[in-house]
Amino acid sequence: MILTVTLNTALDLTYRVPRLTPHTSHRVTEVVERPGGKGLNVARVLAALGHQVTVTGFAGGTTGAVLRDLLTQYPLTDALVPVTGNTRRTIAVADAASGDTTQLNEPGPAITSTEWHAFLARYTELLHTCEAVALCGSLPPGIHVGAYADLVRRARAAGVPVLLDTSGEPLRRGIAARPDLIKPNAGELAELTGSRDPLRATLDARRRGAHTVVASLGPDGLLAATPRGTWQATPPRGLKGNPTGAGDSAVAGLLSALAEAQDWPTRLTRAVALSAATVLAPVAGEFDHETYEAMLPRVTVTEHARAA
Amino acid sequence: MILTVTLNTALDLTYRVPRLTPHTSHRVTEVVERPGGKGLNVARVLAALGHQVTVTGFAGGTTGAVLRDLLTQYPLTDALVPVTGNTRRTIAVADAASGDTTQLNEPGPAITSTEWHAFLARYTELLHTCEAVALCGSLPPGIHVGAYADLVRRARAAGVPVLLDTSGEPLRRGIAARPDLIKPNAGELAELTGSRDPLRATLDARRRGAHTVVASLGPDGLLAATPRGTWQATPPRGLKGNPTGAGDSAVAGLLSALAEAQDWPTRLTRAVALSAATVLAPVAGEFDHETYEAMLPRVTVTEHARAA
Repeated sequence: MILTVTLNTALDLTYRVPRLTPHTSHRVTEVVERPGGKGLNVARVLAALGHQVTVTGFAGGTTGAVLRDLLTQYPLTDALVPVTGNTRRTIAVADAASGDTTQLNEPGPAITSTEWHAFLARYTELLHTCEAVALCGSLPPGIHVGAYADLVRRARAAGVPVLLDTSGEPLRRGIAARPDLIKPNAGELAELTGSRDPLRATLDARRRGAHTVVASLGPDGLLAATPRGTWQATPPRGLKGNPTGAGDSAVAGLLSALAEAQDWPTRLTRAVALSAATVLAPVAGEFDHETYEAMLPRVTVTEHARAA
Repeated sequence: MILTVTLNTALDLTYRVPRLTPHTSHRVTEVVERPGGKGLNVARVLAALGHQVTVTGFAGGTTGAVLRDLLTQYPLTDALVPVTGNTRRTIAVADAASGDTTQLNEPGPAITSTEWHAFLARYTELLHTCEAVALCGSLPPGIHVGAYADLVRRARAAGVPVLLDTSGEPLRRGIAARPDLIKPNAGELAELTGSRDPLRATLDARRRGAHTVVASLGPDGLLAATPRGTWQATPPRGLKGNPTGAGDSAVAGLLSALAEAQDWPTRLTRAVALSAATVLAPVAGEFDHETYEAMLPRVTVTEHARAA
């Protein structure tokens, strides 16, 4: 079983409008509700790939109830911990005129100390039976900034490979606890290392404690600095579509291939093909299995020369 | 008891953001949830004025459950009819930089024929015990465009004074059923009559069937064409604030004074003072009782000369 952790789950709403014009009134033509938060997105992709997946984190209030109800549609195990606060909503306003979206993210409920300890107990128990764990997304209010470092340490103590996908100070602190894998995007990597050179920043992030760093570089694919070498995996040129969820699909691809003990070129190929299929999908954050299969042979993997 | 009807109730969310920039991501700094839909807004103001109020219309799904739960905070009677569909949300994105709001309105659930007939039974029963009824807002999907005309006829048959506050074709059809009072704004009035001259359009709307027409003209107050004469009631000049809900407060003022059998100048004064207090309130759609009392003596009412 693969475990994904989403401390700040969300009910993701997509509102379709003809054109978003600030300070006017809009009739929303279509509303789509989906379970959200990075870890839940990763879990949905893993489940679609045929993996056994368990999700944990927090859910509460009426929004949390809607979220958990939507989760029953997917072949995954819900091990979310109930909280008193109301799970947040995120709203993506999809503008038909431009094809772009405008994102509005609620902050999420404050988590109490009792709730955090209930989660730690659940997490520690779940670690006994999982092959890999992914810690994903932002921290909700009330959770201390070193929370991911704590969760990384517990995974390592249990001998479970741990992937951390977050940003800012929680990422900085989390890396110091030596996760097996981090997957920053270019912006998160620059914020962490101060360097905008992808190769330099990726190698630097490794030196800070992460066993392996896989940087997601948008249309340039993934750059992986691992103990066995450095690879770049690139999707076909000129893919047009919606990048929402592409990073989460990459995380799912990495975890999927990790759980199957594949080598790094295979892991990266799978991650890039899943990202590409997500970009090409008509619904943001979804992916089509046939498109994914068609992308696999079109991903290019090159190994960087090793430093002398 | 005063009855208000809201066929398309809503859970109104206000999202505070520093500045709304299309096609970027925003962290919402504050979320306020409120029961909404014009008839519920009118009912909350009536309840705050000390009237006995019953609300009916439709509510369903998890959003409907949240709405009904929020309604319990107000001193009014919930006679909403349950439906299978999910009550809509509306989102007002309040932009701190400009002070303006951007409105996103979900369409609302489709109402089935069975649900409509359940509502008609409830409505007809409630008419037996009410002093006045207000029919407010848009029609949800599935309700025929002549629905308000039907509701107006039933109120008249029961001898209950009926106020209609809607727009477009439902207003046009509703007027033909001869409601006691309609309260269009300038835009709705122009759409109905084809005239942008407020006095001409107001008198024209009366000729179409409404016993009395009270047009809301924003900072110019209310223009009332009644069987007893034509009056204009004007708020103090230069009020700055948020006009959201000012029209609903005017409807509440008209109904309140109607239920007390006050004369037209008193009805209009109350309606304008409530509107003004709503514009001045720090929270959109609320009003402060002291501000309302302070506004009452500052409203100017002038009678138009009667046509020869």
